[in-house]
Amino acid sequence: MLNGERKIARPFRWAMVGGGRTGQVGYKHRLGALRDNTAFQLVAGAFDIDAARGKDFGENIGVSPERCYSDYKTLFAEEAKRPDGIEVVSIATPNGTHYEICKAALHAGLHVICEKPLFFTTAQVQEIKSLAKEKGKIIGVTYGFSGSQILLQARHMIANGDLGDIRIVNLRYSHGFSAAESAEKYSDAAKWRVDPKIAGPSFIIGDISTHTYYISELLLPHMKIEKLLCDRQSFIKSRSPLEDNAHMLMHYDNGAVGTAWFSAVDTGYMGSQTVRIVGSKASIEFHDYNPNELLYQVQGQPYQTLHRGMDYLDASALEDERLGALHTEGLSESWANIYLKFAIAMDAKNRGDEDFLKNFIYPGIDAGLEGVRWIENCVRSADQGAVWVDFK
Amino acid sequence: MLNGERKIARPFRWAMVGGGRTGQVGYKHRLGALRDNTAFQLVAGAFDIDAARGKDFGENIGVSPERCYSDYKTLFAEEAKRPDGIEVVSIATPNGTHYEICKAALHAGLHVICEKPLFFTTAQVQEIKSLAKEKGKIIGVTYGFSGSQILLQARHMIANGDLGDIRIVNLRYSHGFSAAESAEKYSDAAKWRVDPKIAGPSFIIGDISTHTYYISELLLPHMKIEKLLCDRQSFIKSRSPLEDNAHMLMHYDNGAVGTAWFSAVDTGYMGSQTVRIVGSKASIEFHDYNPNELLYQVQGQPYQTLHRGMDYLDASALEDERLGALHTEGLSESWANIYLKFAIAMDAKNRGDEDFLKNFIYPGIDAGLEGVRWIENCVRSADQGAVWVDFK
Amino acid sequence: MLNGERKIARPFRWAMVGGGRTGQVGYKHRLGALRDNTAFQLVAGAFDIDAARGKDFGENIGVSPERCYSDYKTLFAEEAKRPDGIEVVSIATPNGTHYEICKAALHAGLHVICEKPLFFTTAQVQEIKSLAKEKGKIIGVTYGFSGSQILLQARHMIANGDLGDIRIVNLRYSHGFSAAESAEKYSDAAKWRVDPKIAGPSFIIGDISTHTYYISELLLPHMKIEKLLCDRQSFIKSRSPLEDNAHMLMHYDNGAVGTAWFSAVDTGYMGSQTVRIVGSKASIEFHDYNPNELLYQVQGQPYQTLHRGMDYLDASALEDERLGALHTEGLSESWANIYLKFAIAMDAKNRGDEDFLKNFIYPGIDAGLEGVRWIENCVRSADQGAVWVDFK
Amino acid sequence: MLNGERKIARPFRWAMVGGGRTGQVGYKHRLGALRDNTAFQLVAGAFDIDAARGKDFGENIGVSPERCYSDYKTLFAEEAKRPDGIEVVSIATPNGTHYEICKAALHAGLHVICEKPLFFTTAQVQEIKSLAKEKGKIIGVTYGFSGSQILLQARHMIANGDLGDIRIVNLRYSHGFSAAESAEKYSDAAKWRVDPKIAGPSFIIGDISTHTYYISELLLPHMKIEKLLCDRQSFIKSRSPLEDNAHMLMHYDNGAVGTAWFSAVDTGYMGSQTVRIVGSKASIEFHDYNPNELLYQVQGQPYQTLHRGMDYLDASALEDERLGALHTEGLSESWANIYLKFAIAMDAKNRGDEDFLKNFIYPGIDAGLEGVRWIENCVRSADQGAVWVDFK
Repeated sequence: MLNGERKIARPFRWAMVGGGRTGQVGYKHRLGALRDNTAFQLVAGAFDIDAARGKDFGENIGVSPERCYSDYKTLFAEEAKRPDGIEVVSIATPNGTHYEICKAALHAGLHVICEKPLFFTTAQVQEIKSLAKEKGKIIGVTYGFSGSQILLQARHMIANGDLGDIRIVNLRYSHGFSAAESAEKYSDAAKWRVDPKIAGPSFIIGDISTHTYYISELLLPHMKIEKLLCDRQSFIKSRSPLEDNAHMLMHYDNGAVGTAWFSAVDTGYMGSQTVRIVGSKASIEFHDYNPNELLYQVQGQPYQTLHRGMDYLDASALEDERLGALHTEGLSESWANIYLKFAIAMDAKNRGDEDFLKNFIYPGIDAGLEGVRWIENCVRSADQGAVWVDFK
Repeated sequence: MLNGERKIARPFRWAMVGGGRTGQVGYKHRLGALRDNTAFQLVAGAFDIDAARGKDFGENIGVSPERCYSDYKTLFAEEAKRPDGIEVVSIATPNGTHYEICKAALHAGLHVICEKPLFFTTAQVQEIKSLAKEKGKIIGVTYGFSGSQILLQARHMIANGDLGDIRIVNLRYSHGFSAAESAEKYSDAAKWRVDPKIAGPSFIIGDISTHTYYISELLLPHMKIEKLLCDRQSFIKSRSPLEDNAHMLMHYDNGAVGTAWFSAVDTGYMGSQTVRIVGSKASIEFHDYNPNELLYQVQGQPYQTLHRGMDYLDASALEDERLGALHTEGLSESWANIYLKFAIAMDAKNRGDEDFLKNFIYPGIDAGLEGVRWIENCVRSADQGAVWVDFK
Repeated sequence: MLNGERKIARPFRWAMVGGGRTGQVGYKHRLGALRDNTAFQLVAGAFDIDAARGKDFGENIGVSPERCYSDYKTLFAEEAKRPDGIEVVSIATPNGTHYEICKAALHAGLHVICEKPLFFTTAQVQEIKSLAKEKGKIIGVTYGFSGSQILLQARHMIANGDLGDIRIVNLRYSHGFSAAESAEKYSDAAKWRVDPKIAGPSFIIGDISTHTYYISELLLPHMKIEKLLCDRQSFIKSRSPLEDNAHMLMHYDNGAVGTAWFSAVDTGYMGSQTVRIVGSKASIEFHDYNPNELLYQVQGQPYQTLHRGMDYLDASALEDERLGALHTEGLSESWANIYLKFAIAMDAKNRGDEDFLKNFIYPGIDAGLEGVRWIENCVRSADQGAVWVDFK
Repeated sequence: MLNGERKIARPFRWAMVGGGRTGQVGYKHRLGALRDNTAFQLVAGAFDIDAARGKDFGENIGVSPERCYSDYKTLFAEEAKRPDGIEVVSIATPNGTHYEICKAALHAGLHVICEKPLFFTTAQVQEIKSLAKEKGKIIGVTYGFSGSQILLQARHMIANGDLGDIRIVNLRYSHGFSAAESAEKYSDAAKWRVDPKIAGPSFIIGDISTHTYYISELLLPHMKIEKLLCDRQSFIKSRSPLEDNAHMLMHYDNGAVGTAWFSAVDTGYMGSQTVRIVGSKASIEFHDYNPNELLYQVQGQPYQTLHRGMDYLDASALEDERLGALHTEGLSESWANIYLKFAIAMDAKNRGDEDFLKNFIYPGIDAGLEGVRWIENCVRSADQGAVWVDFK
């Protein structure tokens, strides 16, 4: 049970690159990081590509004007000179800039928290992973939906054998907000996502599927994809070669199969993510429009619906409980849980407690790596004509 | 609005082959055919492979003992001698027997109503189609779930352009009743379904997917599959080579794509069929566990849920209305609607009204043909290693 | 498990008074009675106050023209002369005529099946109850929603103590089809319901609340109301003194309390009936828009949803199973179950098997009596200013 | 759209009385107040009746040790001496202490934010209201569920006439966590709630019904209750005279009627609050387990489900939007919205902008007054034997 009391000795001094007034994502980072003021304190930032707007914004959210910098390079350089300089930075900029900023941050001696998808290639991730190891720093990846506690209940039940052998995995993250071309006409935040130079080799595969793919990894740590097929489309032609819809088939190393559907043209749909895991004994299903519930369907028994915050849940699913049963949690609690884990991991790293880190579950550099690997394999399959490829 | 008043001059004299006490499906045929006693009258049958049991059963449901026959050949021969002999027969036997019985029935001058999947091969269907044409008879195929009126509303909305251009088709029919091998150990009805000699080249593709595939044809008459990929599994090894789970990907001639999931090992799931059609403007979704509702999701507008029996529906979706709004209909009404259409089609055929038949929608021989074609293509793709095949 | 095989030696010869083409309810009676053709056969009727229309209708549903009578008196008189005359009659006429027709039917030696509310006063019911006893006949009351099998599961669980001591009873039956005065302007079937001379002392209390009240009796046979308060309104003024909305509070003899809401002005609502029973250990909830499910909520445990047709249900809840799990049942199955029970009760009565009848559960004369008592008490409370009255 | 940017010149210096480690409610206050660090800063507190534990707790959440006081009197006295002393205090202590602490806070020149129910009697509220006016201070009442934006959409639709004339109001707030006596045996937070000296004249009426009653006032500002009847029970006898279950009937001045159900013994139920408002044209329904949706049911049209954050909503329902559509909000956002309004109101009060305050909607002293009035009337009716009383 969490109530805001400190989990680490003192909050980290934290800055953001990007995440200013013109997009939605920065606020989610701040809601996550600053939930309790005992894990992070926002003390600096380069919030906007428009420096003046960024400075105005920074002041408006309580950052000292002199620590609102015009760009990330200045931010890292100037903060490095201060005795109370930043210790960690979050990167919430378009995909194409992640790699450079991340590398610069590590060289500046900072822990890094970065938006997904981490970079364009697994090679880049491997390079940064090595650098982070060398520098003794944590890389956190903001798979912001993955912090729902009920997912840890699902993970526990699967590990516990409640589902039997896992046979089928169904992943979905879909919405219809890009059903028309006008979606990117009037929004800068939408426009860069369909530009390969900035977004990378995919639109929705990178933008949304990595969230759900990470959840599948969180639930099924014992399973690996062996073969994959990805069929992607650009229903809005101007988005080509980037896709606005994609279907995947997966074969796992334990004999399980999977399907995945990711779409920004699922017209009218407001349900976002669904994860269904089917085992030989039972299935579970999670919908992120109601992260307070987990469906549990045992063959030959009544459906069960588990509720967040209840005593019957596994201890792992109650550790991050904040509001108590009956009191609805949403996406901001998920982000808060992820960010708190980043802080705990950074604290352990700083203390050199590698034993702790070995078993501590949070979306770190390996989760980021796997996300990019997923994208690479999907794109490779799709570009060969939606054929089966070995997952590598 | 239906209330049981006759739609044709007098009810047809009807018999069944199969459909006796040991299976579930015969009762559904009778519920469908005899709903109002103004379309069909059950006057004869060869209800069971065990002749004595079949006779006992026939008497118990009100058939004269002398018209409860030991087998279909005797049934057809003896009834042909009577002035009040049967005019139509329903075939509710294991798949492998459909073709012979159907051919015999046509040669005996009968209309035929047959369980899905019709036969093992499209060649067989083409042969029977020719024979039926020659004999001037109707072949009805009992896609028993397709009679839900709300599906006609969906069809109307699609034809009317309410969804815009169709982009994505999602089909699902899944349950978990065969999650364990014991499913077929203790049930004859389950056992033959996994025996290729009796079931044909597939288990669940033939057994359940043809239902949902027909619904997709009903809703999307203007679209044809061009390419298909099918990945099938036998999670219970003893079922091999027949599958208990399958995933398909489809490419349609209008640029739309589709996915389909059919499973008898979807552990614990009680929802059966879902059909989701996504257009450029809106989506619709149908769940056969609640055939009284249709979801309608227009991008940028509130979700809408349409209810069966309401005035705002299209006339086509009210024609078969029986109970009135607020009064829940279920699967038996769906069967009743299908059977009533069979009677109306047979009546028109007998009267030679081919104009009427041209525009009359019911699951006839072409629907049966397409179902077998679907199976053939799925199996062909799966057997080549889940590769894309041209749909032919 | 039912499959249409006979439960009694031969079907009863059955007629209807009312239930013709102009209303909805007659078809529900026929769907219920004729589901399997092994319990009832429709052989005669006086279907309509307009004799010609009634005759045309009767012929159209397969009744011999000479047995389509102009009125109930002729029906009873003429059929009595035939060796194959009717044995049972269903009364589906406006409330105000039930008493006279029922009395005449009993005097004609018929079993009677009658629409709710049975009569205007409990005194009338007591009189008819005595007469039926004297004549050795069954009176069935068509609480048509009460035949859902899952209600028998609920009854079993309550009797079994699964809920602990019953504390709270919530009843609701509401819709919005009379939200505007125009409801009765254009429909004869709607108009008489708000005319006290024909409908009796109430509109929706008599018309719909008796259904839900009977379900509460079915589930809670061990509990009796001691005190009741009813607050009723006529939101459409022209309906006064008859109500279109009513709220009740109940105190039961075991210390439980109850609330009830019945409305024809619950604008836009399509959910009809909800019954929630709260015990010291668990609650159950039934919605008649999904009669295939029963919610079961044990304090401190996951929600459970029980599905119709599953092996884990009590035997009593599987006895009337027709379609099998996964196959949705609706209101017509509920009516069929009730009608089958009427036939079984009549058969037992004819055979003089009073022992059987003692424990056989169906909505008979006592259920009809309690329905009228409920109405009387509600109206008495409401007319005194919505005060508490002793339930008597 | 909110993103954490300041709405007032600088955050208020804020303290809490109560709200420490042993209860759940303090964290909700902090989550609400500190969401963005631009409305409040927590600088002091008397967090616990156990001073040492309170101090330890305060330090753990980032308060300077010297500003963690042993009791509210010291808090007010010491802070008054500081140039940077607190400007506003939140009171999250058991009910019986609210009045004294609130009075002391006003005398100390502080704005006050207080838990519901405000005090024991309306006389007390009137006195404090006068004092607050005299001191020029705001009293905010933490009806913490009332900040869901979708409720403002409901309010707008009602004001706009979308529902027509309001006829029926249904309120419910129920759960089963006190279904057994053990609920209060092992929890101090539960124990005082059933002790009249500390809780006041009611248990669940004060504890939970005031939340829902305030929501009804928020939605229906034009309607007043004229007559009320309350029937309350103590299913756990040891709670007597305080109730653990209550039912109310209401008559409003516009002819509408209402029902309300509040319970802590609604065994197994996890749905908490439901508010249904029925008008002559349409109904709306809100469930706080899904505060992202609003049901809208127009008679004769498809159901509509409105989603939080969508462009089609009224501007008033988008003003507090934080996460954007598709991204689930929960109870913590509701508290944050309420607290932000408190800050804005205090800021306006400090600036003397009474014009602004006249039209600014937030749960202030009058909402607190009406809550206590509701309790008084409910208890008066119940104690006279569940009779109708004039609401005064």
